[in-house]
Amino acid sequence: MTLEVPPGYRAHDAQSLRFYLADIPAVAGKLGGAAADWAIEEVGDGNLNLVFKVRGPDGGVAVKQALPYLRLVGEAWPLPLERAHFEHMALSREGRYAPGLTPEIYHYDETLALIAMELLEPHIIMRHGMIAGTVYPKFAGDLSTFAANTLFFTSDLALKAAEKKELIAAFAGNTELCRITEELIFTEPYMVAERNRWTAPYLDPFAAAIREDGDLKVAISRLKVKFMGSAEAMIHGDLHTGSVMLTEEDTRVIDPEFAFMGPMGFDTGAVIANLLLNYFSQVGHEEAPGARDEYRRWVLSATRDFWNGFREKFLRLWEENGTGDAYPAPLFASPEGKLRLAAEREAYMARLFADTLGFAAAKMIRRILGLAHNIDLEHIADERVRATAEARGLTLARDMMVNTEAYPSIEAVTAQAERLNAWEPKLGG
Amino acid sequence: MTLEVPPGYRAHDAQSLRFYLADIPAVAGKLGGAAADWAIEEVGDGNLNLVFKVRGPDGGVAVKQALPYLRLVGEAWPLPLERAHFEHMALSREGRYAPGLTPEIYHYDETLALIAMELLEPHIIMRHGMIAGTVYPKFAGDLSTFAANTLFFTSDLALKAAEKKELIAAFAGNTELCRITEELIFTEPYMVAERNRWTAPYLDPFAAAIREDGDLKVAISRLKVKFMGSAEAMIHGDLHTGSVMLTEEDTRVIDPEFAFMGPMGFDTGAVIANLLLNYFSQVGHEEAPGARDEYRRWVLSATRDFWNGFREKFLRLWEENGTGDAYPAPLFASPEGKLRLAAEREAYMARLFADTLGFAAAKMIRRILGLAHNIDLEHIADERVRATAEARGLTLARDMMVNTEAYPSIEAVTAQAERLNAWEPKLGG
Repeated sequence: MTLEVPPGYRAHDAQSLRFYLADIPAVAGKLGGAAADWAIEEVGDGNLNLVFKVRGPDGGVAVKQALPYLRLVGEAWPLPLERAHFEHMALSREGRYAPGLTPEIYHYDETLALIAMELLEPHIIMRHGMIAGTVYPKFAGDLSTFAANTLFFTSDLALKAAEKKELIAAFAGNTELCRITEELIFTEPYMVAERNRWTAPYLDPFAAAIREDGDLKVAISRLKVKFMGSAEAMIHGDLHTGSVMLTEEDTRVIDPEFAFMGPMGFDTGAVIANLLLNYFSQVGHEEAPGARDEYRRWVLSATRDFWNGFREKFLRLWEENGTGDAYPAPLFASPEGKLRLAAEREAYMARLFADTLGFAAAKMIRRILGLAHNIDLEHIADERVRATAEARGLTLARDMMVNTEAYPSIEAVTAQAERLNAWEPKLGG
Repeated sequence: MTLEVPPGYRAHDAQSLRFYLADIPAVAGKLGGAAADWAIEEVGDGNLNLVFKVRGPDGGVAVKQALPYLRLVGEAWPLPLERAHFEHMALSREGRYAPGLTPEIYHYDETLALIAMELLEPHIIMRHGMIAGTVYPKFAGDLSTFAANTLFFTSDLALKAAEKKELIAAFAGNTELCRITEELIFTEPYMVAERNRWTAPYLDPFAAAIREDGDLKVAISRLKVKFMGSAEAMIHGDLHTGSVMLTEEDTRVIDPEFAFMGPMGFDTGAVIANLLLNYFSQVGHEEAPGARDEYRRWVLSATRDFWNGFREKFLRLWEENGTGDAYPAPLFASPEGKLRLAAEREAYMARLFADTLGFAAAKMIRRILGLAHNIDLEHIADERVRATAEARGLTLARDMMVNTEAYPSIEAVTAQAERLNAWEPKLGG
C-alpha cells in the first residue's frame, strides 16, 4: 500500500536526518562539532512516530517526526501528518502556561511534520520507572501544576469568548487523532470488535459482563458525547504516564499530538487512571507478596496529591486570574456575591471531579479490554496474576463510571482501590 | 466615526440596488420586466441590517444586506459584515434539513454581505400577528419540525465526529454575534449596566431583586458556560417570534445570522420564551378583561405543542437516523440494549428540556431588563399594566432557571404561567 504524502515530505533515517539538521543553526548549535560526528539513534517505542536521539559534543536534541500511518498497526491505518502541526501548537502553548514542564522546542518543520526539541536526559518514561518501583517525589506537584495551568488558561474562566473560539477553530482539524480516542476508548471495549484483546481466558467473564452492561454502555456513551462536544479547554488528550518523562527532580510532559479543545476531565482522568492501573499491577512486579506495599502506598498518595493539588491550584488560578467571560466578576462583586461565587467554584470542581472519574474509568477499561494496553499490566508474565490485577481494575473502573456519586473525593477512590486490591476475583478459564 | 469596510463593499440604497440586481440573472428573472420598473422599498425594522423588498411584474425578491454596525445602537457598535457569510451558511443548511420552512435563496454576494431571497408574501412577522391576536394553526407543527430537523441533523447523533468538527470550525468565527448574546443575555441583565432598561419605577424592585439573587446569577453563569462551550448542534441562535414569518398556512424561519455550533436548548428555549412573553403581554392588548382568554389558551397550547412535537420528532429522527458517532448502534444492538437506549433517549430529552427551560428563562429576563425589548410588551402603553405583565414573566423565568427540576414537563410550565397570570405583583413607584 502506497500512502500519499505531501510534496517535500520524506521519512528521515539517521543519515538523512544528519544532513537535514546540519542546516538548522538552532539545532546544529546545540549539538556542536561536525555533523559527521553526531550520534543518531532511532528510539521510537510509541505508536505513531519516528523518534531520534541526536548527540553532539555540546549537547543533545530529540527529533520527533510523524509517520503517515499508525505505527502500532502499520500502513493499513493511515494517519495525517498534520498531527505534528497540532502537537507543535499544543506544545508551544503548554510551555507558555506551564513553563519548565515541557521540553523546549528548537525547531519545527511543518512540511516534514518534524519537531526538534530538548533531549531529556537522564529522564525516563514514568511508566517504566513505576514498573521498577521508583518513587517520584515531585511528580504529583508538577503534574497538578501542568494540568491546572494548561487547562485553566485555555478555558472560558481565563479567556475571552473570541479567543477561546479561535482556539476551538485552530484545533478542530485534529479529527483523525480524536477519532482514535472515540473508537478505541469510548466504543470498542464495550462491544465485540476485532481490535479488542484481553487476558483470555481468565478475563473472559469480565469482558463479557462489560459487553452486556447497559448502565455502563449508557455511561460511556454520555462521556463520549462530552468528549465530542464539550470544548472546555485545550486538553493534552493523552496524558498518561507514558507521556511523562522525569527524574526524581524534574518532570516534563511530552507528546500532545492528541490535543484539542475538549473536556478538562479527560486529562485529569488520564493521570488518575494510569496511577490506579499501576497500583493494581504491583502484584505482578513485587519479588514477594507485600514487598511493594510501601510503593503501593506511594502510588495512592501520589494519586490523592495529584487531584487535591490540581483542585487547589485550579481554584487559586480562578480566584486570581478569573478574567474570562465565564462567571463575570461584576455579577459577583458584593460580599454576598463573592461568597456565592466561592461556593459555586467548589461546585464546579465537584462536577469536574465527577467528569474526571468517568474519564479515568474509561481509560482504565480501554487499557484492559481494548487495542492498546499498558506495559504495567502487559509485562506481568503470569497471566493469572495479570488477570487478577486487571479484574480489580475493571471492577473499580466500572463502579467509578456508573456509581460516580459514591466517590465524592479522591480519598474515596483510593480507599476503594485498596479494598479491591485485597479481593480475589473469580477468574474464567 | 468612519467604519472600515472591505474593498468592494458599499451599503446599497434603492437606486444602486436596482442596477446591481439587474445584472443578476437569477434575481432579474424572478422579477421580470425592466429594472427601471421594479418597485424597491427599504423595510428593515430589525437591528442589524438593510432589508429591501423588490417587486417586478413577475414576482418579488427580498434583499438583506449587512451593515458594518449594529443598527439599533448606531455606528458606535461596529459589527463585522462576515455575519452574512454565517447567515448564508446556516440558511443553506436549514433549507436542506427543513425543506419549505426557510426562504429560498436566489443569490449570495460575499463582498457585499448581501443575500437575495424569496419575498415572503403575504407572510408577516409572527410577533406582530400574536400582538394582534392571530391564531397560527400550523406554527407549532412547523416550528417543532424546523427545530427537530436542524438540530438533530447537525448533532453528534446524526453526524460523524469529523463532519461535526468541520461545522464547529466553519462557525467558530461568528464571535461578534455570539458576544452580543453573551453580554446582552447572559451578563448585563443581572448587574448594573448602562444598556439595561426596564419599566421604571414599577419594575425597580424586581430588577433590584434579580441583581441581588445569588442563586440566579450562578444559574445564568452556568448557562453562559454552556452557551460558550457546548457545541451540540448548529443552532439558529435567535429563534424568537421576530425570526418567524408566516401565514395561517405557511411558516418560514428567517435571519440565522447568530448561528453557530452551540447548545440545542438555546433554540428551543427561545421559542418557548417568546410564546410565554406574548402570553403575559395579552393583558395589555385585550379590549376588555378576559377578551383575549381564548387567545391566551391558544398561546399556551402552542407552547405545549411546540415542545411535545419537538420532543417526539427529535426522538423519531434519532430512532430512524441515529447514524452519528454518539450512542453507537453496535453498543445497543441486543433486545436489552435497545430497551436501555430507548430509556436513555428519554433521559437525554429530559436533560435537553431542562436546558431549554434555563435558556427560555434567560431570554425572558433579557427582554424585560436588558437592552433589547419585545414589542409584545413595549407596545403596552399603560406602564403599570406593562410592568404587571413583566413582573409575572420575570417571576416565572426566575423560577424556571433556579428551580428547573420543579418543571418536569412543559405542562408544568404552562400551568405555572396561568397561575402567575392571575397574580397581582406588588409593583414599585
